[in-house]
Parts: sequence; structure tokens; C-alpha cells
Amino acid sequence: MSLTAQQLGELIRAGVPMAEDIGFTVDEAGEGFARTRLVFSQRLIRPGGTLSGPVQMALADASMYAAVMATIGQVEMAVTSNLSINFLEKPAPGDLIADATVLRLGRRLAFCEVRLLSPDAETGEDTLVAHVTGSYALPGNR
Amino acid sequence: MSLTAQQLGELIRAGVPMAEDIGFTVDEAGEGFARTRLVFSQRLIRPGGTLSGPVQMALADASMYAAVMATIGQVEMAVTSNLSINFLEKPAPGDLIADATVLRLGRRLAFCEVRLLSPDAETGEDTLVAHVTGSYALPGNR
Amino acid sequence: MSLTAQQLGELIRAGVPMAEDIGFTVDEAGEGFARTRLVFSQRLIRPGGTLSGPVQMALADASMYAAVMATIGQVEMAVTSNLSINFLEKPAPGDLIADATVLRLGRRLAFCEVRLLSPDAETGEDTLVAHVTGSYALPGNR
Amino acid sequence: MSLTAQQLGELIRAGVPMAEDIGFTVDEAGEGFARTRLVFSQRLIRPGGTLSGPVQMALADASMYAAVMATIGQVEMAVTSNLSINFLEKPAPGDLIADATVLRLGRRLAFCEVRLLSPDAETGEDTLVAHVTGSYALPGNR
Repeated sequence: MSLTAQQLGELIRAGVPMAEDIGFTVDEAGEGFARTRLVFSQRLIRPGGTLSGPVQMALADASMYAAVMATIGQVEMAVTSNLSINFLEKPAPGDLIADATVLRLGRRLAFCEVRLLSPDAETGEDTLVAHVTGSYALPGNR
Repeated sequence: MSLTAQQLGELIRAGVPMAEDIGFTVDEAGEGFARTRLVFSQRLIRPGGTLSGPVQMALADASMYAAVMATIGQVEMAVTSNLSINFLEKPAPGDLIADATVLRLGRRLAFCEVRLLSPDAETGEDTLVAHVTGSYALPGNR
Repeated sequence: MSLTAQQLGELIRAGVPMAEDIGFTVDEAGEGFARTRLVFSQRLIRPGGTLSGPVQMALADASMYAAVMATIGQVEMAVTSNLSINFLEKPAPGDLIADATVLRLGRRLAFCEVRLLSPDAETGEDTLVAHVTGSYALPGNR
Repeated sequence: MSLTAQQLGELIRAGVPMAEDIGFTVDEAGEGFARTRLVFSQRLIRPGGTLSGPVQMALADASMYAAVMATIGQVEMAVTSNLSINFLEKPAPGDLIADATVLRLGRRLAFCEVRLLSPDAETGEDTLVAHVTGSYALPGNR
């Protein structure tokens, strides 16, 4: 039985301590993808007025987890095996969107891509602020 | 004038919000390296009793920053350009050590390696729990 | 003045020794992207009948170079700064397509993504065989 | 029964087409490591007089393979799962050394680090020209 976006958000906030801290929510999810969100709070800002790197990495990691669970169901034992992030632009001091896609689902590994987007309220256009790839090691008994 | 380990710890805790959360401290630092520490607290644990991936990434990021500043002095404008982490073993529920080395200091980029180590109180041996590489973009006026 | 796909192919085959070996050609190129091709030859096959990893990496590297030059014109001094490849499926023993996109063009770095695709002659569908990200250091006088 | 450096070199030159092209040899190997070499030839040079990126990637890939086989014996089915390279300095037009280390040997994955070194005949000092990490997927029946 597949999980709703809301259920995914609750599962991850309960299971990953930092997810709660960054106001992690799942906007939308389905077979092979999840669109998630960091809800902005002043507490996450570093001097200079931008969201820190670790905060962006936490969002990317949680969004990959959401995309994997949206695809294969609840897997408590899945663990990140590799994560590689390239920071491209400073995000604006606002919400951050993560578009996570499962590019390949193998028997033992799920390989994902995440695009972190900073929406511009005025223009309605999103700026790509970071690009992430990562692998999840899947539990053996699948 | 070079910065002491204690000054580096204070600078980073003040500048990177998540550094404070993970009890980030600098044990030792000098030309081209820094040995830093995440001071364990129950709050950082995820279900299953291990330190989460984002917490390890935050430690690695802060320790690269420490190694760069230990080498070239205080640089507020340095920003992480890329970070790639491979998770190798589950860390024990205790302090985590980060050994950060500057492998190459260019005019525009510093390239660093970090080894995250989980010390075993009984045997005195460290387990390599994650391996990290990363690049820092340095300010233009160097 | 922008370069045609054919000019890009010639420039890269002349400049990168291995490009010639893999029968590198540029099918299509424009602002921010290039679609390139490895022309299959028996010589490139490793035992087991598949294209080796280094051959795929050479194609990815050359296709990023093509996408960068299609965007900013001929730059002989651009050098790859980082390349990260994830091998997802064994490619079929046939041509290999590379879709390279410039995700961000900064003053000093171009960040690119490449998808290596193995076309299936029967179904007409492409299989994603490898995913690549990479950075090009651009010459200083831009 | 463990493989000698010479046997490893022969196995890899026979199995990886590009290894032959770069004059790949194994200088030394043992539990968890291999020191390998690209034997310089004018044919590998790109305009500007330096060894191309793909040639360095081919050397790194073959040297990881050597380190894995030096550790667990001959495994024909092992395939590179991920390779990430950072180019740090232009190599001199001469032999290139690769020091490959197995940082973690799991049941399903071997994680390796490779340092590409350009020896300076006059000073006897090696320059680190590239840093590589990579994962090998190991055959299931180990």
C-alpha cells in the first residue's frame, strides 16, 4: 500500500532528528519521485542571510528518502550510502523546494537525483541552488 | 596571525547554526589540517541508535572550514562548492572525530579530505565511519 | 560566433586523444547542451561484451566539453575540475548517446550533468546506463 | 591464493581494453592496496603537453580494480559502481603513479581511494595531481 505525502512527511520527521528542525514537509510524492519543502525559519540562517550548506544537505537527504519510500513503501532500514552535493547559488531567505527523482531502482541500491530550488515569489521562477546525487542501500530481504 | 583551535571552534559555532547543535569543537588545528569533534548528545540520535547522515555531513562541512581557516586565516566569504560523502559504517552512539586535511590549496579553490572516526573507548581503536571530499571556493581578493 | 555540431566534434577529436579512439561525434549542440555519440567498435568492448567504464567516462568528459563550448565558444584552456560518475546499467554493445547539459554557468566554473543512454534499436527506447556530474574550470579572462 | 603484482597487471591489461593503451602496470600490491603505473607515451598527451583527464580516470579505475583483487582474489564480475575524481594539478609529461587503497571492504561493496602522483625526477618528490574515490560492486556469492 502506498504512502501519502503527509504520511511520508510524518515518518521522516519522526525518524530523522534534523528533519524536524528544518520544518521538513512533503508536498507531493508518487512512483519514483517526491517534491519536498524546507519551511523557512530565521533559526536556519547563517550570517550573510542564507541557508547553510548542512541545512541544504539535510533537506536533500530527507527528500531522497521520501522518493525511495514513495516508490517501494516504508523501509526503515534503508541507509544513505553516498551523497554528493554541488552548491550552485546562494538560496534566498525563504522556503526551499527539493525535487527528488529515483533514477534507478536496483535490487540493492536506489540511485537518486535531487534538485534544490529557491522559488522567487515575485517572478514565480525557481532558481536551481544545488544539485545532489545519492545512493540508498536497500534492505536485503526485498 | 594564525587562529587557535579554540578560536576556530568559536568562529564556526557563531557562523554556522548547525555547528552549535552538534556540539562542534576543534581539538587541534594547524597548517593544512584540523581535528574536530562532535560532542555526543541523545538529541542527535536517530531510531536504531546511530548518528544520522545529516549530522555527519554537518560535522564534515564544519571541519573542512576549520582546516581551511587554520591554513589561510579567517575567511568569512569562503563557501562550500562541493561535498561528497560515503557512509561506510554506522557510528557508535558517542563522540565523533573528524580529521580534515587540505590536499590542495589553489588560488580559487581549496580541496579537502575528511575522515570521520568513531573512537572505541575499550580498544582505543578508531573506526572509519565515513569518508568525505569537498571543495571550498575562496574569496577573490586573496 | 557559435560552433556547429560538426566543428565541435572536430575540435574535440583533435584536442583530446581518447576522443578519436572512441569515435566521438557531436549529433547536436546549442546554448547549454550537447548530444554526442560514441560510435561502437569491437575494440572498445571488455570481456563480457560491454563498454568499459573508462570508455564511458571519456565520452562523458568530451560531451561536457562540447556543451560548454556550445555555450561560451571555443575555450582551449577550460579544464575538467571534477567528474563524478555513477554506473547504473551495463550498456548494450552498440552506440552510446551522451546528453550533456550546463546546469550553471558561473564566471569561474561551469557545472554540467550528463546522461549516458543506450538506445534499443527494437523498442526505440533509451536506457539510462550512467549518470555523470562535472565541473569545468573556465579561463580567467572571461 | 593471492595474486602477484605481475599477475594483476596481466589480468587487467587482458580484461580492460584501455589498460593496454595506457601501458598499465602494477608495481606493488598486497592486502588492501596497489601501487600502479601509467607508462608514459607521447600518444597519451593532449595539446598543452599534459595527460588528459580520461587517461587519468582509466588509470584510477584500473588501480582500484588491482587493489580489490589484491585483497579478495580474482573477481571477474566486480564492476565499478561509482567513481569521483578531482583534478588538482596538471601532471608532468611522464609516468603517472596511482596509489589505491581499499578503505572499506563490505560484503557487497568495496570502497577505495586513489591518489594519482606525478613523480619529479629531479627532486624525487611526488605531486598529487588527482584524488579519486570509488566503489566496486562485488559479486553476490562471496
